[in-house]
Amino acid sequence: MARAGRFATHHGAVSTPAFMPVGTQGTVKGITPAQLEEIGPQVILGNTYHLGLRPGDALVAELGGLHAFMGWKGPILTDSGGFQVFSLASLRRISEEGVAFRSHIDGSSHFLSPERSMEIQRNLGSDIVMALDECPAGRLERPKLEASMARTTRWLERCREFPLAEHQGLFAINQGGTLLDLRKQHLEEMLELDARHPFQGFAVGGLSVGEPKEEMNATLAEFVHTLPEDRPRYLMGVGTPEDLLFGIEQGVDLFDCVLPTREARHGRLLTSRGRVNIKNARHRESPQPLDPDCSCYTCRTFTRAYLHHLFRVGELLASTLNSIHNLSYTVGLTRAARLALLENRFPDFARRTRDNWQTEEP
Amino acid sequence: MARAGRFATHHGAVSTPAFMPVGTQGTVKGITPAQLEEIGPQVILGNTYHLGLRPGDALVAELGGLHAFMGWKGPILTDSGGFQVFSLASLRRISEEGVAFRSHIDGSSHFLSPERSMEIQRNLGSDIVMALDECPAGRLERPKLEASMARTTRWLERCREFPLAEHQGLFAINQGGTLLDLRKQHLEEMLELDARHPFQGFAVGGLSVGEPKEEMNATLAEFVHTLPEDRPRYLMGVGTPEDLLFGIEQGVDLFDCVLPTREARHGRLLTSRGRVNIKNARHRESPQPLDPDCSCYTCRTFTRAYLHHLFRVGELLASTLNSIHNLSYTVGLTRAARLALLENRFPDFARRTRDNWQTEEP
Repeated sequence: MARAGRFATHHGAVSTPAFMPVGTQGTVKGITPAQLEEIGPQVILGNTYHLGLRPGDALVAELGGLHAFMGWKGPILTDSGGFQVFSLASLRRISEEGVAFRSHIDGSSHFLSPERSMEIQRNLGSDIVMALDECPAGRLERPKLEASMARTTRWLERCREFPLAEHQGLFAINQGGTLLDLRKQHLEEMLELDARHPFQGFAVGGLSVGEPKEEMNATLAEFVHTLPEDRPRYLMGVGTPEDLLFGIEQGVDLFDCVLPTREARHGRLLTSRGRVNIKNARHRESPQPLDPDCSCYTCRTFTRAYLHHLFRVGELLASTLNSIHNLSYTVGLTRAARLALLENRFPDFARRTRDNWQTEEP
Repeated sequence: MARAGRFATHHGAVSTPAFMPVGTQGTVKGITPAQLEEIGPQVILGNTYHLGLRPGDALVAELGGLHAFMGWKGPILTDSGGFQVFSLASLRRISEEGVAFRSHIDGSSHFLSPERSMEIQRNLGSDIVMALDECPAGRLERPKLEASMARTTRWLERCREFPLAEHQGLFAINQGGTLLDLRKQHLEEMLELDARHPFQGFAVGGLSVGEPKEEMNATLAEFVHTLPEDRPRYLMGVGTPEDLLFGIEQGVDLFDCVLPTREARHGRLLTSRGRVNIKNARHRESPQPLDPDCSCYTCRTFTRAYLHHLFRVGELLASTLNSIHNLSYTVGLTRAARLALLENRFPDFARRTRDNWQTEEP
């Protein structure tokens, strides 16, 4: 099912499979746009919830949009804000109209509806706009899940009606947890809307949210290949190198996750030989690069001993150098998978990649 | 008295006047060596006290020295460790042999003598080595100051005896507080040693440590021009744009200070129009660059509104972008002063620079 693809956006074509680094508050944490260009992601992600609150989407629009604001020239995808708002738990109230919530910053009252989500994303000027979906909290029973999906379909229609900027494309989000028949039913509803006015792409939501890994993988294996073949498929909130490789094998084209940068800030590094905890004393005197197979700025400039030192003494630069590596590794993994697909050697690539992760004490 | 100079080191020539950014723990805080290269300092500074404790100078030597360890190819000056050790107050005991002290990290016992300071700096492999001086705590009475200076002279002889690496040059440090006759007497003692075996340069220590600004300036005005004309003059721990300009006018060639990076991390930015507090609400919607006369990465890429946003939401990138600017401004100020000196328009340059700092609400 794995595939290499390509689609156009206003800020350039996107070659897939591709991992999208997350820039929640208008910055990929600890990384300048110049460093990001060298890392080379195809798309980066901005968060509608955070940017809508601070600095505010109207101000970003006044300043020329998110691209100009944060100094990133490539494609940007914005999420709908739904996931963050639904995560606010006691601070939000859901109705058919939308979600009333209180800001996690100052407790001020706000309302996120499909129309408001579209408005924020239009103000941000992202290339790819995500429809507002209801994100079921944890694992729901079937009747509640069905009601939630029905609402998500109605909200998708409202998102579709909203006049986005001409350069923006809308992705629809499929829900249904790990219940395959619900996902297929939801997809049919989405395809009815799609027939009238095609979406730019399709996302798989509501996975990697706490369900057992086997259930997530089974759902992906049975469901992803049923999504329209001619449009990009986006698996939201995933993730780890293992999950990326598995997702690509199921036909996923796009991924996003905060994991590479968050892990980096905690000294947990992803390498071609498996995970490295740079805090570990055995790296204290190591003259080796972090990952001998990596050509990122961090790996070609510094030893493990230096990265260990920076982390132990709590220097800011530790976060930056570790994030440069983890993003380079993750983006590079999807880029290498694409190359292997184009050269018809993907199964061999996937096997060798997994074998290398098994290295003892990388 | 202002002058443009040039001297050689193993890692390249140093053109003065020059400001040296401080890389206390083997990194200029929040800045990669690649970013530092673009900022363009002539020399950077490493701290003997911190690096001797973590990761340890023997390990740095094993890994090829501080240049290789931190990925910086230009000249490095290391301090003697004295200033930090003397600042430990209750944690240290001074004798003729040296200073017994406890680590601020884990309370472990250490001993810093002139020989040990030289050994650490040899292990670090810096280009410019600073002699260990006794740093008088605060403002001493004359007899105590005299005794301290006599010890500093004896320690200077011991530093001179120590076999540094062939590529390393030793700077002597002049003390004497704000008492001009003591400074001159101390200088005579240094010049006796210098006659037998010339020092690479001379530093002015013990200023900018809490004395009134007028006393510091008077001392500089009366003393700096008496230092040997054919060797670089280094004013330690200074500082602000105003102090740099005044120091240059008195014939100082080299400066170092943590101020530009520390102020940057607190959102206090140095510009050609004066100081800017980026936290201030009036920058919230500003589409202007931080400093219209600055061509650093920060100023040519981002608006004040973006820098304000990053600082307010507490993003790591705020420290990095603010530090890039403050260092670019400070290094650039000394570079511009040099150019003005070479083109015989320094007084005009100094006057216009000071006038520009007076801008209302930059």
